[in-house]
Amino acid sequence: MEKKINIGIVGAQFMGRAHTNAWYDVANFFDLPFKPVLKAACDLDPRAESSFARRYGWESFETSWEDLVKREDIDIIDICTPNNTHMPISVAAARNGKHVICEKPAAMDARETLSMYEEAEKAGIKHMIAFNYRRVPAIALAKEMIMEGKLGKIFHFNAVYYQDWLVDPEFPWVWRHDAGLAGSGAHGDMNAHTVDLARFLVGEIDSVCGEERVFIPERKIPGSDKTGKVTADDATSFLARFREGASGNFIATRFASGKKNFLRLEVFGSKGSITFNLERMNELEYYSREDTSTEQGFRNIIVTESSHPYLNKWWPPGHIIGWEHTFIHEIGDFLLAIANDEKISPDFFDGHRNQLILDAVMKSAKDKQWVTVPE
Amino acid sequence: MEKKINIGIVGAQFMGRAHTNAWYDVANFFDLPFKPVLKAACDLDPRAESSFARRYGWESFETSWEDLVKREDIDIIDICTPNNTHMPISVAAARNGKHVICEKPAAMDARETLSMYEEAEKAGIKHMIAFNYRRVPAIALAKEMIMEGKLGKIFHFNAVYYQDWLVDPEFPWVWRHDAGLAGSGAHGDMNAHTVDLARFLVGEIDSVCGEERVFIPERKIPGSDKTGKVTADDATSFLARFREGASGNFIATRFASGKKNFLRLEVFGSKGSITFNLERMNELEYYSREDTSTEQGFRNIIVTESSHPYLNKWWPPGHIIGWEHTFIHEIGDFLLAIANDEKISPDFFDGHRNQLILDAVMKSAKDKQWVTVPE
Amino acid sequence: MEKKINIGIVGAQFMGRAHTNAWYDVANFFDLPFKPVLKAACDLDPRAESSFARRYGWESFETSWEDLVKREDIDIIDICTPNNTHMPISVAAARNGKHVICEKPAAMDARETLSMYEEAEKAGIKHMIAFNYRRVPAIALAKEMIMEGKLGKIFHFNAVYYQDWLVDPEFPWVWRHDAGLAGSGAHGDMNAHTVDLARFLVGEIDSVCGEERVFIPERKIPGSDKTGKVTADDATSFLARFREGASGNFIATRFASGKKNFLRLEVFGSKGSITFNLERMNELEYYSREDTSTEQGFRNIIVTESSHPYLNKWWPPGHIIGWEHTFIHEIGDFLLAIANDEKISPDFFDGHRNQLILDAVMKSAKDKQWVTVPE
Amino acid sequence: MEKKINIGIVGAQFMGRAHTNAWYDVANFFDLPFKPVLKAACDLDPRAESSFARRYGWESFETSWEDLVKREDIDIIDICTPNNTHMPISVAAARNGKHVICEKPAAMDARETLSMYEEAEKAGIKHMIAFNYRRVPAIALAKEMIMEGKLGKIFHFNAVYYQDWLVDPEFPWVWRHDAGLAGSGAHGDMNAHTVDLARFLVGEIDSVCGEERVFIPERKIPGSDKTGKVTADDATSFLARFREGASGNFIATRFASGKKNFLRLEVFGSKGSITFNLERMNELEYYSREDTSTEQGFRNIIVTESSHPYLNKWWPPGHIIGWEHTFIHEIGDFLLAIANDEKISPDFFDGHRNQLILDAVMKSAKDKQWVTVPE
Repeated sequence: MEKKINIGIVGAQFMGRAHTNAWYDVANFFDLPFKPVLKAACDLDPRAESSFARRYGWESFETSWEDLVKREDIDIIDICTPNNTHMPISVAAARNGKHVICEKPAAMDARETLSMYEEAEKAGIKHMIAFNYRRVPAIALAKEMIMEGKLGKIFHFNAVYYQDWLVDPEFPWVWRHDAGLAGSGAHGDMNAHTVDLARFLVGEIDSVCGEERVFIPERKIPGSDKTGKVTADDATSFLARFREGASGNFIATRFASGKKNFLRLEVFGSKGSITFNLERMNELEYYSREDTSTEQGFRNIIVTESSHPYLNKWWPPGHIIGWEHTFIHEIGDFLLAIANDEKISPDFFDGHRNQLILDAVMKSAKDKQWVTVPE
Repeated sequence: MEKKINIGIVGAQFMGRAHTNAWYDVANFFDLPFKPVLKAACDLDPRAESSFARRYGWESFETSWEDLVKREDIDIIDICTPNNTHMPISVAAARNGKHVICEKPAAMDARETLSMYEEAEKAGIKHMIAFNYRRVPAIALAKEMIMEGKLGKIFHFNAVYYQDWLVDPEFPWVWRHDAGLAGSGAHGDMNAHTVDLARFLVGEIDSVCGEERVFIPERKIPGSDKTGKVTADDATSFLARFREGASGNFIATRFASGKKNFLRLEVFGSKGSITFNLERMNELEYYSREDTSTEQGFRNIIVTESSHPYLNKWWPPGHIIGWEHTFIHEIGDFLLAIANDEKISPDFFDGHRNQLILDAVMKSAKDKQWVTVPE
Repeated sequence: MEKKINIGIVGAQFMGRAHTNAWYDVANFFDLPFKPVLKAACDLDPRAESSFARRYGWESFETSWEDLVKREDIDIIDICTPNNTHMPISVAAARNGKHVICEKPAAMDARETLSMYEEAEKAGIKHMIAFNYRRVPAIALAKEMIMEGKLGKIFHFNAVYYQDWLVDPEFPWVWRHDAGLAGSGAHGDMNAHTVDLARFLVGEIDSVCGEERVFIPERKIPGSDKTGKVTADDATSFLARFREGASGNFIATRFASGKKNFLRLEVFGSKGSITFNLERMNELEYYSREDTSTEQGFRNIIVTESSHPYLNKWWPPGHIIGWEHTFIHEIGDFLLAIANDEKISPDFFDGHRNQLILDAVMKSAKDKQWVTVPE
Repeated sequence: MEKKINIGIVGAQFMGRAHTNAWYDVANFFDLPFKPVLKAACDLDPRAESSFARRYGWESFETSWEDLVKREDIDIIDICTPNNTHMPISVAAARNGKHVICEKPAAMDARETLSMYEEAEKAGIKHMIAFNYRRVPAIALAKEMIMEGKLGKIFHFNAVYYQDWLVDPEFPWVWRHDAGLAGSGAHGDMNAHTVDLARFLVGEIDSVCGEERVFIPERKIPGSDKTGKVTADDATSFLARFREGASGNFIATRFASGKKNFLRLEVFGSKGSITFNLERMNELEYYSREDTSTEQGFRNIIVTESSHPYLNKWWPPGHIIGWEHTFIHEIGDFLLAIANDEKISPDFFDGHRNQLILDAVMKSAKDKQWVTVPE
């Protein structure tokens, strides 16, 4: 592993740290033809605290992403900033010939995601949206099983994503509460994930009908005696119809007291079913209608066998992995795609399709009726 | 318990048997001022097999419900027939001064349920819709806790009702598949239950938007080489908005492979949350935001203590009860309401409100847009 | 069902009520050639409250069991009294030619159980010990699966039976705390059940080594300012070796805070495993080493299909039954064994073998070493 | 973090890799006054494959541990070799003034562990046994709660450790099957962990009575047509009595089909209870007898809050960590203890006490009677 590949990261908050950890660890678990080097980091706010960036040993710091994307010694740009900057940074990076991995949701709306996609393709770079849950081993196993026909024809894809950090009315107003700055709230943050998993596991969505809710319409602005208006959704639910005929139901909320990061999938098919819960992400529930009739039941598969996706890189059976490992899988696969000049998924096209669906839900919520997702 | 009260039942199929079992057992568990007597049974089909009716010792058999409701020795009419007969039987029974307990859904549409309610009130009888799940002890406990404010303001009421008996394409065409005869399929059968629980636990629903699905559009007609058209829904999902502001999400399907009678409630509030699953009906999950912060978690309450609703009638802690017991609770409470001349719930008004919501969902599914539930 | 069979019951407390309920209901669910008649009841204490006996309609009341067992109109004696009376009542009943069903544990020690067995055999009557958990459908299914070789060779049988009703130090002294009167405490009450299930599912036990514990050595005597000494065990654990080579581990305790009636079995074999929990008695967990390797996992079988043991008598799939139903199964099978003059199990021989094991554990606890169970 | 601390590791197999990963990552998550440097690695077999050691960047390789422990540039020796080498390596390391962290079980018997402890104390070094499960956050939380008196007086500590990798009779004979080389099998490997947790959570054990089992007495020697004799236990169970009066029950087996790395604790006390399962190591079940009586139940605490032990170093609530993180916690705390010259636990004294208990169990299994653990 003499060869190196140089990484530049933008965004030094929570997601920046999760990605950094993955860049730091990935070569210890994936067989790669080059070693990723933590070359340069920057944040939108040049004064931003980035103790973790120093700690992990990023070699240099830039004060603007515009400078970062132009650096000749950088091969990959990793975008971990708020949604409204994804498009400009990724387009600039692509135009400078950098490979790009970008946090989700892809951007603010489908116009932006389309331009991201088109520019990336034109530049011939590798591009990826960091929908990391595709690379939870249990989800990757579910995908394999669905591809093998284990579920037969899919009737239902029901997904919830529950968190509870906004239940507290004292939680302050932040930019995320402003629809103008954030695009949306729970919808873009959480439904973006479950919509990606829906497309991954079941296929394209044809039409949707949704509802957005704000439960606490004003919150205190920190360091002030004023309140800010909450315009980004606290919760968004929607019904969906998949192209192949399945029925979809999605709920995303930050008002589910007691649920911390609870993402549940239920996929019901003509031959069997699969359910999954992110808080127990090392497990997959599988029901087969082909088991002996008196012995049918949902199996709790502990997805830690070396024969399961990604698990040959980790520990013996029953020794579970955590949330952060999904980023190592994602970044490992991204590096392999670059090395082998292969297509990686989910890419910017997936990000764009995802955004078209999210946009359609928001339109349907406004119009109080079903909306067809554009082709 | 010298006094007697005489029961006449219409409908000698599955639900007739469950009700009969409750009439047979109830006086052993409830302190009642009179003993119910299994006086007379009949079925819509005079030739119907009713081995269980003989076995349980119904004293006499009528060949028509019209005769039954006129018998002077009958005090209570119990209606366990298909939906399209609920209205005429209950109206006739009321006009003859009988108390009436009627299976759900209340009737075919809100016009029918309204007349049922008005006639019953005019006759001054006691009337009940057999939404038995209100009397699952865990649900009754949830109601108590919500009334005491344990959940605070409710944000979400999410309910699913999953069964899988129609997944098999060889399952034959029966009258239940005809929307004209059955009113609806999964919707009237299953959403009727969860809508009742929603009204019971959270309150009235203001508006809805739903989708109906038929996954297998034709099925073989038994004893024939023809197929019948399936017009009643295999699955119906809908979004809802409650009057008090909560957001609702309902799914009913008979196409959830592996789920036999899986009714899950998730109620999220500002102070806590409750979840419930009918397949583990002796348990209630409760999360309190007021527990010590490092020790918060969903509690698995085994609802078998003598201090829990209805449990003082049964066995020691940890000795679970089954599905049929909910009918004993329902019929016991109905008899007590008659004895004490008190209001019973859910009554025909609840059945009517329930039907208004079901009808609104069906209209919204047709119109592809939100519909306001009539006042 | 013109023919009748007449029942006499001794013991009008908790277990008497559970048995009465089963006699009252059984003919509604089992196809029997005669109808059980609740002929006569008595209690050891002639003044005993027996409101439930009147309520269920026992036709007559005796003041002594000695009189009851001699009555010519009685066919079956059902013994629901404390352990120290099981032997004399059952022997007297047998000598009078009555069939006998007797609560567990069979008696006070193996000398007693042997005489019960020998007298019953000499009299040629049907005899049964009411180890009702054999007839939990999930346990009966486990038995079928083990008989079919689904688990292969058994390595481990681990059983716990946890309750918590003695944790409260204010719980008063009662006769059950006196080893002289009760024989033992948790051991005879709870290990008796799990030992029966061990013999049922895995086979005879060869040797044991146990420990008895009393955690609260004195308790207040009600209506007095004195305390009574607790000599019956609060908890008993033991290791066991089965004849066929499996290793056993048993724990019974009334000091497991939060566990109400928690009986867990774990049976590990060379081809698969089974686990069971009485608080979720409608479920059986099954793991097969023969499932496809990447899809192995414990299956949660909802044991409510009509193809499952006993379930064709009850309700549709997913509609669970409760604890009391096990008595209906037991009494139904007992009546069928009488009708068909067939062997019933568990009989007094099983009760005797069970007692030999319980006695060996108590001896090992006293001697602090392993004890071989007599042949 | 200019200062460095140099690590030398012995043992380049599975545990060596888990420790290496922790040394590699620890400074990114713990605030340390020095940065650990992966200075030198060696294996017992100088030809051993150690691809991971190269991959993680160990700076140099030694061919003998005797050389390694003498190197002046090494501050800490990390011992990840088989049990029979723990004593000589750790003693040599201590005599050379190195701090030592050593895998469990501490050594082959209590004579060895005593000398390890005495030599380490004499040398004044920091010493630790790598019982990593003390630093599962849920276990650390349990410890805090027990210390605060949340469970009251402890009645029961029941622990099982189930794996299934030896069920396959084709699994070959390896040195671990030889009691002479390995000391013991499941006992030293798995009961060592649960005994450590017992001492950590409940206190010292006074006496024990156990049973060892070998289920498959011969296995094929790889690359040969001979079989080797299995003398190390496949499973060991034992009863225990704690000094403070609690009753203990331990089962360790590698023959529990379907259980991969299933370590379950159940701790029952006078005020409450705690249960834990390593396969869901981010969760802790807690029951409080002080909750409102109708609302008591086991709480499922998702141990991922920043207020929970170690979690402020990781990710937001609900984002779970994995098995490997326990090593990071352990090594982080070890480095802090060195930095602050504080006592670390579990140290070699804990390893010695642990071994005394393991030895007593083995003696009791041989003598078929209870054995008192030496003071």
